[in-house]
Amino acid sequence: MRSGDARALARAISVVENHAPGWIELLKDLFPHTGRALTLGLTGSPGAGKSTLVDQLAKLYRKDDQKVGIIAVDPTSPYTGGAILGDRIRMQDHFSDAGVYIRSMATRGSLGGLARATGDVSLVIDAAGRDIVMVETVGVGQDEVDIVRVADITIVILVPGMGDDVQIIKAGIMEIADIFVINKSDHEGSERVEKEIRALQSLATRQDGWAPPVVKTVATTATGVQELADAITKYRQFLLSKDLLRKRRADNWETRLVEMLRDTLLEKARAQLSARDLSRLAADIAEHKRDPYSVIEEIVGTV
Amino acid sequence: MRSGDARALARAISVVENHAPGWIELLKDLFPHTGRALTLGLTGSPGAGKSTLVDQLAKLYRKDDQKVGIIAVDPTSPYTGGAILGDRIRMQDHFSDAGVYIRSMATRGSLGGLARATGDVSLVIDAAGRDIVMVETVGVGQDEVDIVRVADITIVILVPGMGDDVQIIKAGIMEIADIFVINKSDHEGSERVEKEIRALQSLATRQDGWAPPVVKTVATTATGVQELADAITKYRQFLLSKDLLRKRRADNWETRLVEMLRDTLLEKARAQLSARDLSRLAADIAEHKRDPYSVIEEIVGTV
Repeated sequence: MRSGDARALARAISVVENHAPGWIELLKDLFPHTGRALTLGLTGSPGAGKSTLVDQLAKLYRKDDQKVGIIAVDPTSPYTGGAILGDRIRMQDHFSDAGVYIRSMATRGSLGGLARATGDVSLVIDAAGRDIVMVETVGVGQDEVDIVRVADITIVILVPGMGDDVQIIKAGIMEIADIFVINKSDHEGSERVEKEIRALQSLATRQDGWAPPVVKTVATTATGVQELADAITKYRQFLLSKDLLRKRRADNWETRLVEMLRDTLLEKARAQLSARDLSRLAADIAEHKRDPYSVIEEIVGTV
Repeated sequence: MRSGDARALARAISVVENHAPGWIELLKDLFPHTGRALTLGLTGSPGAGKSTLVDQLAKLYRKDDQKVGIIAVDPTSPYTGGAILGDRIRMQDHFSDAGVYIRSMATRGSLGGLARATGDVSLVIDAAGRDIVMVETVGVGQDEVDIVRVADITIVILVPGMGDDVQIIKAGIMEIADIFVINKSDHEGSERVEKEIRALQSLATRQDGWAPPVVKTVATTATGVQELADAITKYRQFLLSKDLLRKRRADNWETRLVEMLRDTLLEKARAQLSARDLSRLAADIAEHKRDPYSVIEEIVGTV
């Protein structure tokens, strides 16, 4: 896998994603080979053109002979097959280029764990020698914000004409943006979105002193994509010049450790609580034979 | 609180929400008085008009002398003050009517726990003798889907002209809808949204045999709100006639028990791991002095 074989990489990711036997040992072995890649987190509303923008960035990095890994996090719908479908469509574009590896990850029906899984997978891709890892996700919900937290640089993608005030104010992701992109900037309302970003920015100052730039793009025609790449390079240099990249990664690891702890404890708890016990307890609670708070206290007492 | 006092209710909710001393005991005491209210979960994209629709439903239920509790889950932005602002604006409308209690809950910066907190708060409102509890949330992200899982009846709100395919296919909430609402149905594209819902529905059948209806509304003018209330009544009767309400609640409790277990274990773990330890470990990992997987194994070994 470390020699660059894409199939070996795909297999390693599957082991990690499915928690197949040996997955933790694999991650322990790979960890010393990580830390070299630059990780970009890209987030925005559905329909903001994230995938197209990511693909254009990938093409640009490929011209520079950078090896690229892409993790696309898709909220799954059982109706459509979700992530898998997206994978196939996008793979065609880069099919003949082993320098771009795309992996879709689905929001599962289970509890959390997606941010953690995304972090684990990005480590695997990093260890496989990719220079750039891009993590792309829909930017509403705490889960999605957590996912972007694995990134060295976070890019928030907005578009004109989608109830802009709402997308900006409600998204809860303004404060995590290192770079703003206004995609579909040829559409009406682009100036207004920029104004709103500036207005919100004026209300707060960042601790690190960085002023997040606003880059206008039209991803479908690659317009502004070079400018976006330049903004990324500039922020990376800023981070390195102030020794902030190391701090950023340490901060990210604080968040991730707590996540990992939560998920590991949950696995441990679920292992103790069989599906049958759980179903019986839930029925008792629904019928008010027991209260859920005492039930939890009892279970935690035995973990 | 159980005599209907809104201030006492607000205080009880604050105790539960902030995990103030005695919060678990309070929930244990209240639990036997729950199970009477009908809980509605309403979800949709930002800008779909959820709040307006919820307010209109509340007005309708008030005419029938039903006491209403509303929980509005807001993704918080530190820039705008998020939930608190929304609270104040909406309170004005029902200010003089003690029969409508509105509470906003914010998506905190912390890990998960929001679905659990929403569930706890809805129990408190139920115990306070409200007939209808409405939980309203933005419908993207696993967290939001989990929140709606506390509901007896789930209503998914769509709107025309917001990149419809995307909102439907990517939302990941199609499969949880008992009732679909097309709000702003006077806008262009309303027919197309309905067609897409029907097309997706035809791909899957529900285990319980219910065919989720599509109700068209214009919330700002209360158009279609009576039809929505009728659809809610019809599904409630369907659930009761087949003894499915009890099953639904037992299923919900299964999900919630696991959530409660996860959150309780996380609290326990965090209590053991001081902020200083966490910060030191994260720095070690960022500098590759230690690997995170071994760190977690060590911590879990001591919980």
